[in-house]
Amino acid sequence: MLTRESPAAREVRVVRTRAELREALSAARRPVGLVPTMGWLHAGHRALIERAQAENATTVVSIFVNPKQFGDPADLERYPRNEARDVEICAESGADLVFAPSVEEIYPPGFDTSVHVGAIAEPLEGAARPGHFDGVATVVAILFNLVGAERAYFGQKDAQQLLVIRQMARDLAIATEVVAHPTVREPDGLALSSRNVHLTPEERAAAPVLRRALLAARARWEAGERSGEALRQELRDVLATESLATPEYVSAADTGTLQELDHLAGPALLSMAVQFGSTRLIDNELLP
Amino acid sequence: MLTRESPAAREVRVVRTRAELREALSAARRPVGLVPTMGWLHAGHRALIERAQAENATTVVSIFVNPKQFGDPADLERYPRNEARDVEICAESGADLVFAPSVEEIYPPGFDTSVHVGAIAEPLEGAARPGHFDGVATVVAILFNLVGAERAYFGQKDAQQLLVIRQMARDLAIATEVVAHPTVREPDGLALSSRNVHLTPEERAAAPVLRRALLAARARWEAGERSGEALRQELRDVLATESLATPEYVSAADTGTLQELDHLAGPALLSMAVQFGSTRLIDNELLP
Repeated sequence: MLTRESPAAREVRVVRTRAELREALSAARRPVGLVPTMGWLHAGHRALIERAQAENATTVVSIFVNPKQFGDPADLERYPRNEARDVEICAESGADLVFAPSVEEIYPPGFDTSVHVGAIAEPLEGAARPGHFDGVATVVAILFNLVGAERAYFGQKDAQQLLVIRQMARDLAIATEVVAHPTVREPDGLALSSRNVHLTPEERAAAPVLRRALLAARARWEAGERSGEALRQELRDVLATESLATPEYVSAADTGTLQELDHLAGPALLSMAVQFGSTRLIDNELLP
Repeated sequence: MLTRESPAAREVRVVRTRAELREALSAARRPVGLVPTMGWLHAGHRALIERAQAENATTVVSIFVNPKQFGDPADLERYPRNEARDVEICAESGADLVFAPSVEEIYPPGFDTSVHVGAIAEPLEGAARPGHFDGVATVVAILFNLVGAERAYFGQKDAQQLLVIRQMARDLAIATEVVAHPTVREPDGLALSSRNVHLTPEERAAAPVLRRALLAARARWEAGERSGEALRQELRDVLATESLATPEYVSAADTGTLQELDHLAGPALLSMAVQFGSTRLIDNELLP
């Protein structure tokens, strides 16, 4: 069933229940690589699936739009979905198994447990989206326990999410290694995101300003600038050149704690959230 | 190393780190049964270990006094400990492996995750001991993930703890079956508890009033009484006959939700917490 063929001809099996998943995995060759997604797959997900396929004997993609990580019901409602196309992309990218559960399969009636990660989940996205990271940590703990993968792959675009998931998995002794994969970008620098589909043509044309701002701040850093406030101001200054961009936050933070830095003495994460009309985009750049 | 010999001669291996545990378990015969304890083992633990040994190929006992489930530092400080004797009891009872980690091994520097169970953890012990069940759910999630046992054994004496752990394991998709074992009692009816050691001789003589109260309420129920308040009053009345007993709560609750019942139409849990001097005892009785 999970036979290995040439990638183009690969057959992907779709399972929807915990029981089907368990049954399918009992026969799976190890190691198993997991790519958790919320669907509407793009080239960023393709890169994660291809990497998982290259590094593991079996690749599982989960497709689950997790209601617990959406604060705003309207945001959940408008999150784009196209399972048939997603399954096709999974097959093309080398996945062996797609787990596409219903909400009730992940959160059965009476579900009443949450996983909370502390300080690392508080600033930035955690401050902007209360409860978001509890929803992320809870669903990822469930997916990790259900799949029991040796490795799970996440995009660096969601840098804080990566740190939160790493902390959760390490703290709860879940034996799945959390692997970060570089952000995949459009030719003009815009980070791929399922939310990009909501941008109007004008907003889409304006959106690469995130990347330009990050690269400008990075250039300042490479030229020797070590003031956190100077780097944040550089991000603000570049974002201000784009009238359609409304910055929500800009950050130059410690990569371990995500606390804002006055002075950059070691690795740092530049990051930002910017609103374009009704669409919120994030991006980041790691300074080594 | 984990050879099977006659119970009396059984050798038990003690491991202290996650790495040693993983190594020891990699060679363990399946299924694995886990008995999580806070040490100071008594005949109640013996019964759990013996049952685990009978039902599994490998039996693991964890000994860890979990600081996160103690609200009061003094209560944590005075919790009785005797690891050498505990290990001897584990060996006698048929355990193969004892996991006795340090606090830092379970909660390494930077640990910052908690597992929270909702409504079922709120009344009774949850109301009396704020944060207690978050500590329980968190450490048990860690232990379950570390050991990966097929089954884990808990005493019915801690009835709400059992429900909280079941809910947590089911919700987080941890594939360890939670098995409840009947409360083991002294000949005079006192439920075995590590805390009994703190009772003065007078308090010890008074303590069986918990069991007498539960049996009196049970007798009323068997005679047809279905009023929750009448059963709670029966518990109060019997406890009032013992001047050393200070009731903290008495309860006649739904076994699924632990909400207090006006009228008992199905299974119910009679339970109570009673203070004797500085020692707090709990006990319960299931009505089918």
